[in-house]
Amino acid sequence: MTEDVLPVLTGPVEVVGAGLIGTSIALVCRRLGLDVTLRDTSAENVRTASGLGAGRPAVPGDRPQLVVVAVPPAAIADAIVDALERTGAVVTDVGSVKAAPLEAVAARVGAPELSRYVGSHPMAGSERSGPLAASAALFDGRPWAVTPHPGAGADAVGLVEALVLECGAAPVVMDPADHDRAVARTSHLPHLAAVLVAGRLAHAPAEHLALSGQGVRDVTRVAASDPDLWRQILGSNAEAVLDLLAEVRVDLDTLMAAVESGSGDDLVEILARGNAGTAAIPGKHGGPARPTRSVFVSVPDHPGELARLFGDAGEIGVNIEDVHIDHDPGRPVGLTELVVEKGSAEHLLAALESRGWTTHR
Amino acid sequence: MTEDVLPVLTGPVEVVGAGLIGTSIALVCRRLGLDVTLRDTSAENVRTASGLGAGRPAVPGDRPQLVVVAVPPAAIADAIVDALERTGAVVTDVGSVKAAPLEAVAARVGAPELSRYVGSHPMAGSERSGPLAASAALFDGRPWAVTPHPGAGADAVGLVEALVLECGAAPVVMDPADHDRAVARTSHLPHLAAVLVAGRLAHAPAEHLALSGQGVRDVTRVAASDPDLWRQILGSNAEAVLDLLAEVRVDLDTLMAAVESGSGDDLVEILARGNAGTAAIPGKHGGPARPTRSVFVSVPDHPGELARLFGDAGEIGVNIEDVHIDHDPGRPVGLTELVVEKGSAEHLLAALESRGWTTHR
Repeated sequence: MTEDVLPVLTGPVEVVGAGLIGTSIALVCRRLGLDVTLRDTSAENVRTASGLGAGRPAVPGDRPQLVVVAVPPAAIADAIVDALERTGAVVTDVGSVKAAPLEAVAARVGAPELSRYVGSHPMAGSERSGPLAASAALFDGRPWAVTPHPGAGADAVGLVEALVLECGAAPVVMDPADHDRAVARTSHLPHLAAVLVAGRLAHAPAEHLALSGQGVRDVTRVAASDPDLWRQILGSNAEAVLDLLAEVRVDLDTLMAAVESGSGDDLVEILARGNAGTAAIPGKHGGPARPTRSVFVSVPDHPGELARLFGDAGEIGVNIEDVHIDHDPGRPVGLTELVVEKGSAEHLLAALESRGWTTHR
Repeated sequence: MTEDVLPVLTGPVEVVGAGLIGTSIALVCRRLGLDVTLRDTSAENVRTASGLGAGRPAVPGDRPQLVVVAVPPAAIADAIVDALERTGAVVTDVGSVKAAPLEAVAARVGAPELSRYVGSHPMAGSERSGPLAASAALFDGRPWAVTPHPGAGADAVGLVEALVLECGAAPVVMDPADHDRAVARTSHLPHLAAVLVAGRLAHAPAEHLALSGQGVRDVTRVAASDPDLWRQILGSNAEAVLDLLAEVRVDLDTLMAAVESGSGDDLVEILARGNAGTAAIPGKHGGPARPTRSVFVSVPDHPGELARLFGDAGEIGVNIEDVHIDHDPGRPVGLTELVVEKGSAEHLLAALESRGWTTHR
């Protein structure tokens, strides 16, 4: 399906499940001026999302063009079946796993109803949850898998793709089972590795933990997520996850043998495969990675100093791609990292220095 | 040793190994006005570091007060022995592993020489390497382990602590073997987990990798590091690393059994232990974590717009603790996350909105 023949999203859009993802989609649709109706087993979630401007409570007689199911994994199949039977709308869901819910739905509805269902999965989220964490910008530039089954109607697929594009995301059309193998590799396995590493920290001596640097923080960050949600995700993608865990178990044995025998060549081979893996991840938003360089500047830790720095960078005419502030509450000066296009770095450094900034070359 | 009786670092300081860490220490010492001499098997590294203002090439007849050994792991013991025999200085090294080099040095020098050696290990670094990546701010607020052996002189320990404090880091005094167990847990295990996850990406289909989100990027980032450096690190801390890998192997088997059997309780227990582990990591700079909140603002992607945002935030009088820019080269507007103290967030949001900024609540 090419973009120029996509059906137009005209609404009403019904969002079932007013959590982080559902409310974020609702906010996007409201910005488009569409009528958005909200359903949630929690009346408080509906009130909160409505209060944020994400739509109105659904009432009997609503006739949605599109229903977006954004409920926890264990409730997805029931919610999809309910939406297909209750409305004549195209129905999508935003769950992390696609084959198992499809199978459950296909066993319970006829082919005409099933043709209106097209699964999808935005690669966006947060350690935070609930409608208060929602944002219309959540999906900006993110991949969003669209996973039609063979019996899905072309118009239904197109309408879901239209939603993805309106959300500012990049649709990636793939087979449901293939999607599940992909997220086992790019999401579920990384998550479980983070959990295993973090698990070894849980009862570690405080003086050991005092040596924690940025590396262990990055590796374990995702392990802070909700165990019950992840129990459901892993439970519905068990086969693909187990296949990968079995591969990792073989790699772990090889690694342990290499460390034990002191075989440098085997170790380097394993470590080099890790290098290759990080290089295989595409650029942040799916596009090619542009070469950048970091410029480090000392910035006094009080209001206005960052403003002065960015004001100077703006006058210098260099676009800042990203910023990291390494900020220590106990110290009066923070180190600010400005990420700029490689060709602009020297110019920015020299110009900032001429304005009196302390840079670190 | 308490801070008020620490020996004073007066120099000269000799830095052996003008890479990222050595040159960064040299830059700090030069800022203190100390005479800094540089040694490296690479004459180019010495020239580069000198050119950065990190000191002068060492010459015969130099009489350093302190020698800092900052060479690759496999060369550390030789360099420490050489420094102890060649000079009367206190000698420290900044290697990632402490027990093995100590043992090697103790086997080759007498007790009087050995009393002048005190190992140490700054928890700072970068995926980048070499003197050009050096910065006097590299150690700001970081933990820095100081690992005296029982025969170390109190003055020698004090002088190394003085160096750590001058570098802006926080000394953490611990036994060498205990240090090695600590970094196996907080650094080497996370590294190897990242390598195993990244290894499963190396030959993955491109359409699978297209679904990569921020999670897999964070988990695998450290796996981009130099395999040869890590071969040396792991080789010299094999016992502690193997102990932990064996624990992880048991956890992995438990995890696989839980996924296979569909036992939700077992899965939740493993996932919850991961939660506990992330919570056990101390605040970024070793201090208590202050409650913060993120404020999201849309910022047009051209020079000057971030400056205007920070200028407004500065006038509003709210201190920005951290910044993340989610920037898509293909889109004209980026989403900027401003992290501020929790109590300031509402004020900042309202004030930014009144100045015409689009925020995401």
